[in-house]
Amino acid sequence: MIKTDILIIGAGPTGLFTVFEAGLLKLKCHLIDALPQPGGQCSEIYPKKPIYDIPGFPEILAGDLVKNLLEQIKSFEPTYTLGERAETIEKLEDESFIVTTNKGTKHHAPVVVIAGGLGSFEPRKPQLENIDKYEDNGVSYIIKDPEVYRDKKVLIAGGGDSALDWSIYLADVASEVYLVHRRNEFRGALDSVEKVAELSKKGKVELITEAEVTQLHGEDTLEAVTVKHLKNGESHVEVDNFIPLFGLSPKLGPIANWGLEIEKNAIKVNNAYDYSTNIPGVYAIGDVNTYPGKLKLILSGFHEAAVMCQSAYQRIFPDKKYVMKYTTVGGVQGFDGTKKEAKKEVIKSIN
Amino acid sequence: MIKTDILIIGAGPTGLFTVFEAGLLKLKCHLIDALPQPGGQCSEIYPKKPIYDIPGFPEILAGDLVKNLLEQIKSFEPTYTLGERAETIEKLEDESFIVTTNKGTKHHAPVVVIAGGLGSFEPRKPQLENIDKYEDNGVSYIIKDPEVYRDKKVLIAGGGDSALDWSIYLADVASEVYLVHRRNEFRGALDSVEKVAELSKKGKVELITEAEVTQLHGEDTLEAVTVKHLKNGESHVEVDNFIPLFGLSPKLGPIANWGLEIEKNAIKVNNAYDYSTNIPGVYAIGDVNTYPGKLKLILSGFHEAAVMCQSAYQRIFPDKKYVMKYTTVGGVQGFDGTKKEAKKEVIKSIN
Ligand SMILES: Cc1cc2nc3c(=O)[nH]c(=O)nc-3n(C[C@H](O)[C@H](O)[C@H](O)COP(=O)(O)OP(=O)(O)OC[C@H]3O[C@@H](n4cnc5c(N)ncnc54)[C@H](O)[C@@H]3O)c2cc1C
Ligand SMILES: Cc1cc2nc3c(=O)[nH]c(=O)nc-3n(C[C@H](O)[C@H](O)[C@H](O)COP(=O)(O)OP(=O)(O)OC[C@H]3O[C@@H](n4cnc5c(N)ncnc54)[C@H](O)[C@@H]3O)c2cc1C
Repeated sequence: MIKTDILIIGAGPTGLFTVFEAGLLKLKCHLIDALPQPGGQCSEIYPKKPIYDIPGFPEILAGDLVKNLLEQIKSFEPTYTLGERAETIEKLEDESFIVTTNKGTKHHAPVVVIAGGLGSFEPRKPQLENIDKYEDNGVSYIIKDPEVYRDKKVLIAGGGDSALDWSIYLADVASEVYLVHRRNEFRGALDSVEKVAELSKKGKVELITEAEVTQLHGEDTLEAVTVKHLKNGESHVEVDNFIPLFGLSPKLGPIANWGLEIEKNAIKVNNAYDYSTNIPGVYAIGDVNTYPGKLKLILSGFHEAAVMCQSAYQRIFPDKKYVMKYTTVGGVQGFDGTKKEAKKEVIKSIN
Repeated sequence: MIKTDILIIGAGPTGLFTVFEAGLLKLKCHLIDALPQPGGQCSEIYPKKPIYDIPGFPEILAGDLVKNLLEQIKSFEPTYTLGERAETIEKLEDESFIVTTNKGTKHHAPVVVIAGGLGSFEPRKPQLENIDKYEDNGVSYIIKDPEVYRDKKVLIAGGGDSALDWSIYLADVASEVYLVHRRNEFRGALDSVEKVAELSKKGKVELITEAEVTQLHGEDTLEAVTVKHLKNGESHVEVDNFIPLFGLSPKLGPIANWGLEIEKNAIKVNNAYDYSTNIPGVYAIGDVNTYPGKLKLILSGFHEAAVMCQSAYQRIFPDKKYVMKYTTVGGVQGFDGTKKEAKKEVIKSIN
C-alpha cells in the first residue's frame, strides 16, 4: 500500500505543479498516470510545439514546460505510479481514501486530487479479431520500455509522429522494424519523415505503405501478422511484436463512476472557494473540472492547484493555522534537505 | 483624451499579463501606473530577488519576470500613462468610463480593470516644514529621468538600496552627490554598499552619516538644506536637488472612494465567475481584490486576468461569441503585424 498526504490522479502540468504548492505546505504527493511518462497532454500530444500563453514565457515548447516543472518540484520528491489507470476509490471510516488502479496497486491518502485533464489517455485500438488475446503477449499500444524490443522483429502500424519516431528509435534496437501505414503520406515533423525515408533506403526500416494489418497469428504469443496491400494481395509477416500507434484518446473513464457530480464530461467543483467536489476530501483541478467561466488553460490549472492545496492543508491539519509566506521571503525547503533562498541583504557600515 | 478597449489601472505583473490575454481577443489596452516604470512590486520592491513559485520557473528574478512579461506583450502594443495616479472615475450614459489622473490626464474606455496591487505606490515623505512648496522645484521622491540632474548639486537621503543605487548612478551625472543617512550602516546589496564606499573614497560621493536633513531653504526653488549631525552641530549645504528615498508605501488611495465594495483594504469581486466588482464594467484582479480563499500570489493574478478578459470581451461585444483557441493551435497575431505560430506538420509521402 502506497501512503502519501495528497494523492494526485493525473501527472499533467496541473498535477505536477500541485506537488510544488503542496511541498511549500510540507505535504507529500504521489501521482498516478495512465501514461508511461509525466506531462499529460503536453508530453503525449504536442511536446515539440510552442505554447505562447504561459505567463512569463513569450514562447516555450510544451515538452520544455514539463521539464521545467519536473525540475521545479524535484526537491519535493514526488513518487509515481505510471502506466496504470486509477480505477476505484473507497472512503474509509477515518474519512481517508484508498484508490486502486487497473493493475491492483493500492494508494492511501487523506486527500485525493483529480487532475485528470481530458481523462486517462487510452490507445485507439485497431478492430482486429482476438487482439485482446495477444495484449501483453506481443501486442502493445504504448511503448514503455524500448529495451523489451531488443533483437526482436517488430511491426509498427501508424502514420503519425509516434509511429515515425519509434520506427527511428527501434531501428537501432530491434533486429527488424516494419512500418505499415494505410497511405503513402505520413503526417509528422519534417525531419522525422526524412529520417524514416533514409532508414528505409538503408534497409533498416522496412516500409509497407498503402497497407494494413488484418489478422494476427500465433499459439499463445504473437508469431505473425497478415498485411493486406490495399492495391492488391496480402503478405504474411513473421513478427514478435505488433505495435499499433494510432494515437491515444482521453476518456474520463472509471472516474465517471465515483459518485462525483459530472457535467459535460467534466467534474463540477466549487470554484468560489477551493475546487472541492461534492465528495469532501476529493478535489478536481485543471482541465478535468468545470465551473461557470472555466477556461481549459494551463495557467488556470496552476492557480487552482495553489488554492486547492490551502484547503487540503486545512483538511489534513484542522487545528493548525497556515500563514502563507512568499517563496522570495521564506525560500523553498526541499524534502531532500536542499534549501533555496534569496541572498540576504547586508547591513554594513561604510567608513 | 486617451481611448482604449480595456483601461488597466496598475502595471504590475497582473496588469501586464492582462494585455496579453486581451490581445488574444483583439482588445487593446492602456495602463496607468503611479510608478515611473512598469512591474509593480516586482520592479519597485524586489527586482533583484528570486521568486520560486512562478510555474515553470524553478527560479526567476522578479525583475526578469517583468522583463519577460514586457517581451510577451510587446506585439500587442500596450500604451502607458506612467508616474500618474488614477484619481477619479466617471460613468458615461453609454456605460463607458472616464478615468482621470492626479495630473489631469483623461482616459476613456468601455471596460476598466483595477490591477492596483496593494495600492498606488506613494513615497514616504520626511516631516519637514514647507517641503510641499519645493515639490517639483528641487524636491522629488522618485527619480523618473536621471538626466534632470545632469551637472546639478544633488543631495540624496536614505539608507537602503534606492539611495545606494541612485547615488552610484548620479555620481556620473550630477556635479556633486551627497548621500545623507541617519546611521552608519546601510541596508542593501553587498556590491552596492561596497561601490558607494569606493565612490566616497574617490570623492565622487560625499557621504554624511549619522545625520539628517532638518530644513529646506530657497526663494521659489530649493537652494540649500540644513543637515543636522546627530552627534553634534549642523551644516548648511548648497544643493539644487533634495531627493529623500525613504521607500514607497502602497495606498489604495482614491480608488477607495469610487463606490466599490471594500473589505480589508481590498476590492470585493465575484470570484465564482469573472472577477467583476459591484460596478458593472469595472473588474479587479491581482493583489487588489479579495474573495474567500484569496491568495496574494502572482500566479493567481495571471489566472484572474485570463478569466476577466473573457467577460470584458462579452461586455464589449455582447453579440459576438468568442471561441477560445489554444495559442499553440491559433498562434499569436500581434497588433504590430507580427505573427508567432507553431511550425506546421508536414504531410509528406515517403518513396
Ligand atoms: C494541441 C494542443 C495545444 C494546446 N495549446 C495550449 C496552449 O497554447 N495554452 C494552454 O494553456 N493550453 C493548451 N492546451 C491545453 C493544455 O495542454 C491543457 O490545458 C493541459 O494539458 C491540462 O493539464 P492537466 O494537467 O489539467 O491535464 P492533462 O494534461 O490532460 O493531464 C491529465 C493526465 O491525467 C491522466 N489521467 C486521467 N485520468 C486518469 C486515471 N483515471 N488514471 C490515471 N491517469 C489518469 C491522463 O493520462 C493525463 O496524463 C493545448 C492542448 C492541445 C491538445
Ligand atoms: C518582498 C516581496 C516578495 C514577494 N514574493 C513573492 C513570491 O515569491 N511569489 C509570489 O507569487 N508573490 C510574491 N510577492 C507578491 C507579489 O509581488 C504580488 O502578488 C504581485 O506583485 C501582485 O501583482 P499586481 O500586479 O496585482 O500588483 P502590484 O505588483 O502591487 O502592482 C500594482 C501597481 O498598481 C499601481 N497602482 C495602484 N493604484 C493605482 C492608482 N490609483 N493609480 C495608478 N497606479 C496605481 C501601483 O503603483 C503598482 O505599480 C512578493 C512581494 C514582496 C513585496
